[in-house]
Amino acid sequence: MNNFQYLSPTRVVFGKGSIAELATLMPEDARVLMTYGGGSIKRNGVYDQVKAALGGRDVIEFGGIEVNPVYETLMQAAGVCRTEGVDFLLPVGGGSVLDGTKFISVAACYDDDPWVFLAKRGIVMPRKAIPLGVVLTLPATGSETNPLAVISRKSIDEKRAFESELMYPRFAILDPETTFSLPRKQVRNGIVDVFVHVVEQYMTYPSDAPLQDRQAEAVWQTLIEIAETALSDPTNYEARANLMWCATIGLNRILACGVPQDWATHLIGHELTAFYGVAHAESLAIVLPALWQRRREQKAEKLIQYGRRVWGIDTADRDGAIDQAIGRTVEFFNSLGMPTSMAAYDIDPEDAAAKVQARFEERGFALGEHKDIDGREAAAILRMCG
Amino acid sequence: MNNFQYLSPTRVVFGKGSIAELATLMPEDARVLMTYGGGSIKRNGVYDQVKAALGGRDVIEFGGIEVNPVYETLMQAAGVCRTEGVDFLLPVGGGSVLDGTKFISVAACYDDDPWVFLAKRGIVMPRKAIPLGVVLTLPATGSETNPLAVISRKSIDEKRAFESELMYPRFAILDPETTFSLPRKQVRNGIVDVFVHVVEQYMTYPSDAPLQDRQAEAVWQTLIEIAETALSDPTNYEARANLMWCATIGLNRILACGVPQDWATHLIGHELTAFYGVAHAESLAIVLPALWQRRREQKAEKLIQYGRRVWGIDTADRDGAIDQAIGRTVEFFNSLGMPTSMAAYDIDPEDAAAKVQARFEERGFALGEHKDIDGREAAAILRMCG
Repeated sequence: MNNFQYLSPTRVVFGKGSIAELATLMPEDARVLMTYGGGSIKRNGVYDQVKAALGGRDVIEFGGIEVNPVYETLMQAAGVCRTEGVDFLLPVGGGSVLDGTKFISVAACYDDDPWVFLAKRGIVMPRKAIPLGVVLTLPATGSETNPLAVISRKSIDEKRAFESELMYPRFAILDPETTFSLPRKQVRNGIVDVFVHVVEQYMTYPSDAPLQDRQAEAVWQTLIEIAETALSDPTNYEARANLMWCATIGLNRILACGVPQDWATHLIGHELTAFYGVAHAESLAIVLPALWQRRREQKAEKLIQYGRRVWGIDTADRDGAIDQAIGRTVEFFNSLGMPTSMAAYDIDPEDAAAKVQARFEERGFALGEHKDIDGREAAAILRMCG
Repeated sequence: MNNFQYLSPTRVVFGKGSIAELATLMPEDARVLMTYGGGSIKRNGVYDQVKAALGGRDVIEFGGIEVNPVYETLMQAAGVCRTEGVDFLLPVGGGSVLDGTKFISVAACYDDDPWVFLAKRGIVMPRKAIPLGVVLTLPATGSETNPLAVISRKSIDEKRAFESELMYPRFAILDPETTFSLPRKQVRNGIVDVFVHVVEQYMTYPSDAPLQDRQAEAVWQTLIEIAETALSDPTNYEARANLMWCATIGLNRILACGVPQDWATHLIGHELTAFYGVAHAESLAIVLPALWQRRREQKAEKLIQYGRRVWGIDTADRDGAIDQAIGRTVEFFNSLGMPTSMAAYDIDPEDAAAKVQARFEERGFALGEHKDIDGREAAAILRMCG
């Protein structure tokens, strides 16, 4: 097991009716900026529940945060924070609203261009942030209990991640009932996103971390068990509750403790979103099977363990076991209605390979658990995604 | 899944060499009370590592905290905190030192008798505490990342638990190498303690929490896999690292999210420790098999699931499956050299039954996931522990 630090200070408040807890969780005298996305919270009753729980608090609203939240919009919100003296942020929504608001929280406290936190990730770090608490309405990103945010910048077709301990939410309200009205496609995308988060923290090489391995497998086994019900029976509380908890555990980084991590699927996928606009989870489902095929030798032991424990694949044929592990995963994604190739989105693999290779080379990227996925290797993977 | 809150704000710093991190984790200008137990840390080098990392900080020491930490001793330490103006506590040791120091942290800030926090658990709560960070040297109790403490009071043969969010450690340093010099018996006891912590959070009745179930099973499977090596090869870093992480996950309460809990084995076991002085884990190993036998119908579904998933018990015979699940657990404990009956300690089951029944009735205890284990039922369980 590798040395590690683990921190997860967010207070999780989980269950039906938990939005009412805002009344006690929010500072009494806060000047609040409540952020949200396209306005679905006004149609499904979440907005009204939040407002009721906030009581007489001083609340400004900022709606319209995009899917793949956009730097330019978020900078406007940061300006509002400064002008209005906002001292608490309350994002109500899914991962995009949460990530975007994390960026607002540090952007509002920084005098220069905060894009530097993403462009120079880990080198230039935020030193101050407006505190935030979140109301989650879409189980997927795990943003509710982690210090990460992924932001897009339209003007340069960029999508980048960064992190800061200052961006841990103070609290996270997770009411599975808020997900009942989600479009099927968003639930499907959430399931795949969670699945691949676990992949990034597991599918590398053995590192004497048997508990973490089994905790990861536990998330997959649960997702596989509940996916069909979660999709086909939107008001099934138990299915939605379990999906929501899987999403949180999937990326609160407890699975990453002491193990090597990959994240190449995500970073290649981010470019597909940036260049072609495919949804985040869709980009992961495109890249993952090809990446596993291309990296099957480096990942062999973990692919075989995954196949055996999660899918019950029982064969002494090493190559066959790997093929089946990849095949069952593709079948699972497809069974949710999730495509696993670029053809479904009319993307040309050669075009994608060329664009991503150029960008990775420009940035000097060397990704994956062995730090050997450079532009050339990413291009090779993308050519297999047709 | 039941509604729940989950909070675990302790920063975990895990791995070999991590005691050196104290240099940055500890407040620079703190007036520190460093607490420890019988002095093993002076023999195994941990004391020297801690002192070196603390550098020139202002440190007072308080050694001699007992196994099953004793109120009377802890009250002396609380007095030292007041007299000396201590503003940070640094327990270095196992669960007893950690739990005892948690009690010191709130006792030092309370003007009346702090035993009330235990006698009136959940009713009279601490409002102020000296902050603490911990260096763990014995994997077992999970105290390093939870808000719980168990304290004994000699004068009245009492052993009681309480909790307060104020008692979450700010940080927890977990260096598996600090466990290399532990006596075999303490490692054995640690394994059983962790095993039973997971039991208390799982072995109840189904509650539509498949992820939590699997996370619990992951801890057992890992413990079973590593136990023999952890015992027989004391300097096997990987085995000790995995045991240490199992212990933390076993009771940082992530397994308890949204599920019913039992804790009757612990509360009956506490009385065996209070009356007869058997070690905590030994008391659990005595009570657990009898409690499972006595409660086999109420716990049938979870016992069968546990047997199937953890021990591979594959039979359609319901009673047989339950018997095997209990039997395999007893065999596992015994394989570690852990007795599972009172005979090993010359305790008379009738005497124990009478004493515990009287005390439970005096306190009006009604324990277990169905709140139906009263003094009479506890006595019936204890009579089966011979």
